Amino acid sequence: MKHAPLVDQLINAFTCLPGVGPRSAQRMAYALLDRGRESGRRLGDALHAAMDGVQHCERCRNYAQSTLCPVCEDPRRDASLVCIVATPGDVLAFEQSGEYRGQYFVLMGELSPLDGIGPRELGLDVLEQRLNEGQISELILATGTTVEGEATAHYVLGLAQDAGVGVSRIAQGVPMGGELEFVDGATLAQALKGRRPFDA
Amino acid sequence: MKHAPLVDQLINAFTCLPGVGPRSAQRMAYALLDRGRESGRRLGDALHAAMDGVQHCERCRNYAQSTLCPVCEDPRRDASLVCIVATPGDVLAFEQSGEYRGQYFVLMGELSPLDGIGPRELGLDVLEQRLNEGQISELILATGTTVEGEATAHYVLGLAQDAGVGVSRIAQGVPMGGELEFVDGATLAQALKGRRPFDA
Repeated sequence: MKHAPLVDQLINAFTCLPGVGPRSAQRMAYALLDRGRESGRRLGDALHAAMDGVQHCERCRNYAQSTLCPVCEDPRRDASLVCIVATPGDVLAFEQSGEYRGQYFVLMGELSPLDGIGPRELGLDVLEQRLNEGQISELILATGTTVEGEATAHYVLGLAQDAGVGVSRIAQGVPMGGELEFVDGATLAQALKGRRPFDA
Repeated sequence: MKHAPLVDQLINAFTCLPGVGPRSAQRMAYALLDRGRESGRRLGDALHAAMDGVQHCERCRNYAQSTLCPVCEDPRRDASLVCIVATPGDVLAFEQSGEYRGQYFVLMGELSPLDGIGPRELGLDVLEQRLNEGQISELILATGTTVEGEATAHYVLGLAQDAGVGVSRIAQGVPMGGELEFVDGATLAQALKGRRPFDA
């Protein structure tokens, strides 16, 4: 490399981002140096602010700037309904649907003992405590439909049953607007199994 | 959005990077927040250091940390030979070939009057001045083979001829290790036109 050291250092630092190799990192560094110094400084500020200022919500483990996240802080949210999701991105997806008025519990992962991710790493002790507080009347399971997601769902089911709290799971079936012929067999089988009485 | 504001701000800031949309930006922010806070801080530092500390070399316009870039500062480089390239990435490509011991002049773009990029924007006044100083004996043109690259090459040719400096252009032809049947017609035509006497 015959870059100025600061340029090399910047290119190197960019490769810590997911999906960014040496080529894209170089492109990013050049773009900012050529015609985006202000954006570059803004990104630097945003990085420092977020790395130092973002913690996890005490109640739901989602990203938060204070002890509670915006959802848990909102008194209009129904605290008796808690949706269990794997990532903050899942919370966002539910929020964008505009249909859900309860709270969340974000596992920040899924059970995967081989990778050293057990119940403690997912904060399930915190969830157990909340279940025993008696404020929650229904848990909605919305973990993934992978092996890890299923295992996590079953573990949480056990916790809820121990605490005498009702558990539901979001429906699995054919997505809205999807053409039936492109839906895979496993999904169709689930959709059949989960069929419901139809009335207008 | 129901992210903590600092997280939103970080995701937004990431979208200033080339090739990064809202989805990838979210993925990057989560990756750093989940398991890369140290890398995140390092990237923030590298950004600030580069945005504030990188300027352009006075002689060749490449990125530099002081008035001269590492190549122009190196007394072992042949200052009578100057290679004209469009971007710092091109300099890197030449350096990695290990074959070139002269200096560079980096245009940081190519002539494109419709986009407001004229000779001044490419620093060609600086190049003209260097040509008139009399230290340069040969200019090697290595701009792209696009319309803009050709236009730029011809403009630089004019400057060099006015100053009585010899001009060459890097060879256009079949790439090393390439299969002839996959080489496009224009390249083959150039390769034929540029054929040279062959001896062992």
